[in-house]
Amino acid sequence: MDRITSRKNAYVLLLRALASDAALRAGRSEFVCDGLKLLDEAVAAGAEITSILWKEGSAPRSPAHEALCGKQFLAPQELFDYASPMKNSPGPLFTARLRGAVRGPAPENGSSLAAQGAAPDERVENALILENVQDPGNVGTVLRTANAFSIGAVVLIGDCADLFSPKTVRSTMGAIFRQKVFRMGLDELPDWLRRNGLNLYGAALREDAEELQKLDITHSAVAVGSEGRGLSAELLALCEKKIIIPMAPESESLNAAVAASVLMWEMRRGR
Amino acid sequence: MDRITSRKNAYVLLLRALASDAALRAGRSEFVCDGLKLLDEAVAAGAEITSILWKEGSAPRSPAHEALCGKQFLAPQELFDYASPMKNSPGPLFTARLRGAVRGPAPENGSSLAAQGAAPDERVENALILENVQDPGNVGTVLRTANAFSIGAVVLIGDCADLFSPKTVRSTMGAIFRQKVFRMGLDELPDWLRRNGLNLYGAALREDAEELQKLDITHSAVAVGSEGRGLSAELLALCEKKIIIPMAPESESLNAAVAASVLMWEMRRGR
Repeated sequence: MDRITSRKNAYVLLLRALASDAALRAGRSEFVCDGLKLLDEAVAAGAEITSILWKEGSAPRSPAHEALCGKQFLAPQELFDYASPMKNSPGPLFTARLRGAVRGPAPENGSSLAAQGAAPDERVENALILENVQDPGNVGTVLRTANAFSIGAVVLIGDCADLFSPKTVRSTMGAIFRQKVFRMGLDELPDWLRRNGLNLYGAALREDAEELQKLDITHSAVAVGSEGRGLSAELLALCEKKIIIPMAPESESLNAAVAASVLMWEMRRGR
Repeated sequence: MDRITSRKNAYVLLLRALASDAALRAGRSEFVCDGLKLLDEAVAAGAEITSILWKEGSAPRSPAHEALCGKQFLAPQELFDYASPMKNSPGPLFTARLRGAVRGPAPENGSSLAAQGAAPDERVENALILENVQDPGNVGTVLRTANAFSIGAVVLIGDCADLFSPKTVRSTMGAIFRQKVFRMGLDELPDWLRRNGLNLYGAALREDAEELQKLDITHSAVAVGSEGRGLSAELLALCEKKIIIPMAPESESLNAAVAASVLMWEMRRGR
């Protein structure tokens, strides 16, 4: 295995660029992941590992790991830390292939239907929709919960955190390799819902919203907006009903990932 | 209002020390908070504001804010950022009094019963117990959800993240000023549960655990452990029943704050 010694090494520069540049990730269909646990999850889920950077004198490497891909390197601690988007990571860093990703216009153009881990026309039984949720930890946590609760798909609308940024990926705790995720423009949502036979409900702190525990949302699509602003008027207009998670009057809101998780639990609960 | 210009100013040094030193916070019964929203929440909840540092040319200051306390200062941006535990905060920074806090031995001694926002002997109708949850964002998010779902108390056992670290406080989104929190040793828990008439359930990924949706936990205490290790054997031994949140087989666990939030929703759901 080659040992890398320079910060100008092309692979080190590629890792740093993939960690920070969403367009490069999409263009190369490749993203950066961190840690042995995530590597094992990726392998278990059948993901294609495209390269691995090991930290000298750190993470244990099994013969099975050595057989994963031909492009494997070793770096001394200081250089590894330079290449890594995480502080004090025991390593390894690795790159994996985006699966099922349809390359198309960026979501701000409102005309891309990109899927991770699924064909775009694959039908799902229910879905959790996030609109403009910008915190990568929240988006990653929603994927993790969705996978745990067997939610058919997570759908990202508008300006959500990039699915393949290192922070999002880490928060998924491996669910990034298993959970179906669609990214689409708001204008594409009604057609997608109709094709999947899903009613749309929107989480909203409004007087005319129905209390969550009074609805059966097992086979529905439920949308959650950003903590600050909630769902857009455009998305709310598409909703058959508004749902409220009942809260104490002095509470303004829940964390977006917590609200989404409670809704997904209700989708899982009755099954 | 005095304008601070030196990094050696005693108040600047105090703010930095309070942000990083849990023992100093406990000793002074004072902690550091960040932002106008949290300041307004503190005031609304009747918290005692002990000092405020405003950022020059930033956050708007109303006459009501000026009347909050006598100890108010102004600092130029560079010095404000030096004093602040948060990057790029618009300010203000302020300090607030710990309320209802019983000063006693640190929790590692296992013999302190410290309460925030409650007298230690105040009875509660239900409780969410965290054991060894070290991530401050998770602890803060649990307080926020507990407050939203009107949970009687959050109980911290063992080596949890400090309640008054800036990251925890920020994650509570103001609930730090409203939510009852007890901190106690594991040896004090059985007596506290008995005095409150609460059954103890423990979240555990075990074969012999009962599925959450099949139990009524409305008036119970439910314990959640760290993501990596779960609840300790000692705490599990105190539990009347083990609860499992049903998950897909390939999922190992939920985020600790998500698991706690789903459990608290079940405590709230039936009411």
